[in-house]
Amino acid sequence: MDPFLHAAFEEAEQGLSEGGIPIGSVLVHAGAIVGRGHNRRVQLSSVILHAEMDALENAGRRSAAFYRECTLYTTLSPCAMCSGAILLYGIPRVIIGENRSFTGEEQWLASHGVDIEIVQDLTCIELMRQFVSRNPTLWAEDIGETATC
Amino acid sequence: MDPFLHAAFEEAEQGLSEGGIPIGSVLVHAGAIVGRGHNRRVQLSSVILHAEMDALENAGRRSAAFYRECTLYTTLSPCAMCSGAILLYGIPRVIIGENRSFTGEEQWLASHGVDIEIVQDLTCIELMRQFVSRNPTLWAEDIGETATC
Repeated sequence: MDPFLHAAFEEAEQGLSEGGIPIGSVLVHAGAIVGRGHNRRVQLSSVILHAEMDALENAGRRSAAFYRECTLYTTLSPCAMCSGAILLYGIPRVIIGENRSFTGEEQWLASHGVDIEIVQDLTCIELMRQFVSRNPTLWAEDIGETATC
Repeated sequence: MDPFLHAAFEEAEQGLSEGGIPIGSVLVHAGAIVGRGHNRRVQLSSVILHAEMDALENAGRRSAAFYRECTLYTTLSPCAMCSGAILLYGIPRVIIGENRSFTGEEQWLASHGVDIEIVQDLTCIELMRQFVSRNPTLWAEDIGETATC
């Protein structure tokens, strides 16, 4: 696995070990991780700290020029909120571990010129598959839906 | 001014009094405010706590059904990130104090069926006009742009 995607995956595993939703993300600038994060809905009762948002928050306040040299890695396709944050800050490239468990606003990002790569990493897929099957209600809450199973 | 928009405006004023960016928001359900918030970029060095995000966070974890009965009030047109959060949680109605200082993703929201009302409240407009003229660099940072003045 790409080392930055692997770092995002480690964040996802960290989230799982905390009893949370296993999605991780890292923000990379000039070949170095400048922000790491994972979903903290359960841990902090947060409705905005998706993994990508947590990584952005942990990267701190940055200039527009800085963001435009960044790549965001995330284990799962970014939802509308996280995609909106990517567009707000003009992050030009997003590497997505997988989009089989959930497909977010990839088309919207692409229509705004964001370069997207979907890895379909089997480890990322399996982590989410197991989590969603065991926690359908929690997962539905995280994506603003009503659990159907 | 509508009392809920006024509550959002009070949040904006609170932010200004803290040295922050004067944008406020409230989330309303069944005729009552369930979450209040204001931009906290300066106060908490946060890049994700725009006013709408702060209001959503302060409303706590809610069901999909709950959000679908909510109205979000904000003193300023919501950016891509905040618009994405509105869509993620399926909030059906957004009341916007003004969009002259900044126009966010209103069209994207409308294209997804969100009912949008833009008040063009002169008090909201004047608060932002003064703030932006005095703090162009900080304002540019908040919307992911480079200050041009």
